[in-house]
Amino acid sequence: MQYPPALARLIAEFARYPGIGPKTAERLAFFTLGRQKPEVDAFAQALAQAVERLHPCVACGALAEHDLCPVCVSPKRDRSRICVVERQRDVYVFERSGVFDGLYHVLGGVISPLDGIGPEELRVSELIERVRPGEVHEVILASTPSTEGETTGLFLAQTLASLPVTVTRIAYGVPLGSDLEFADPATLARALEARRPLKV
Amino acid sequence: MQYPPALARLIAEFARYPGIGPKTAERLAFFTLGRQKPEVDAFAQALAQAVERLHPCVACGALAEHDLCPVCVSPKRDRSRICVVERQRDVYVFERSGVFDGLYHVLGGVISPLDGIGPEELRVSELIERVRPGEVHEVILASTPSTEGETTGLFLAQTLASLPVTVTRIAYGVPLGSDLEFADPATLARALEARRPLKV
Repeated sequence: MQYPPALARLIAEFARYPGIGPKTAERLAFFTLGRQKPEVDAFAQALAQAVERLHPCVACGALAEHDLCPVCVSPKRDRSRICVVERQRDVYVFERSGVFDGLYHVLGGVISPLDGIGPEELRVSELIERVRPGEVHEVILASTPSTEGETTGLFLAQTLASLPVTVTRIAYGVPLGSDLEFADPATLARALEARRPLKV
Repeated sequence: MQYPPALARLIAEFARYPGIGPKTAERLAFFTLGRQKPEVDAFAQALAQAVERLHPCVACGALAEHDLCPVCVSPKRDRSRICVVERQRDVYVFERSGVFDGLYHVLGGVISPLDGIGPEELRVSELIERVRPGEVHEVILASTPSTEGETTGLFLAQTLASLPVTVTRIAYGVPLGSDLEFADPATLARALEARRPLKV
């Protein structure tokens, strides 16, 4: 015996998501069956509408429902600084923290020759076009710490060198609130390398 | 700044599921946005159709797309034995294992006076009606081990006492393949209590 077809299909659909194994998929499917029909219809509609309505912001590449994303249209943002991130979702890591009030630029990845990803595959020329008019004074690279991220940073610094803009990179080091004991050697090395004088 | 509305809504919908926190919901929403539209539409349709099409089997209460569930319509099942489970999903625990070829009966819970759940709230009268014709020789209670499960078992045994049927309960004991060291005292007590003579 198997699941009734409609149930089998729902379980299979949940199981397509990363991190959701067969047992979790079954649990989510049964939870679905215990919900009211309007609630489930709302979920189904949210799925369909999300892929329909969301597309990359024409300026920064972040998620937008209109031509421009909420950050790019906001009159409150500092237009002189652009934070370059790898993926669309990285924008929300910064937004949630509330520590950055400039604009973003989603690269769409990092330079990785082994994976056949060069600058042409990324939104590099779009970044240059945004920086060229001279309004942007600083480009902050916030890629995930990795060799590819470093390469990408160096490439951007070289590419933007002829323009009147400073290219910086977020600091890597020991995270706040964590115990030194848990820091991996690479992070410790970076933290040591980037040490600063204590001013008295 | 917030998420674009369509994204915020999708994340909120994922977060309604048990075991899915805000971070996982965001991850699932972004994964959705990276999928092809036909794939996401298929998921949306599977959700809507599952709640539309699935309802309790008129005989046993398990999930069915037609009047009767796949087990109840199968000519291969032993109709003399009924395994009583608490929830619809428990049926699949047995079905997956392939160790039972009789029929099921979904009670819809266990007797729990503290929660205001008496026999009237459960599918007890339906079980009596299935047993009354005399074709069923054994009713096997497979509720989750708990005081309420015991109470329910005793109640069913009393209720069915006047009918020519044996009421049994699945054995509780030390699970196969686990180390004795990890057995909790209550399970050990049950395992000891239900010890059997070794035949030579």
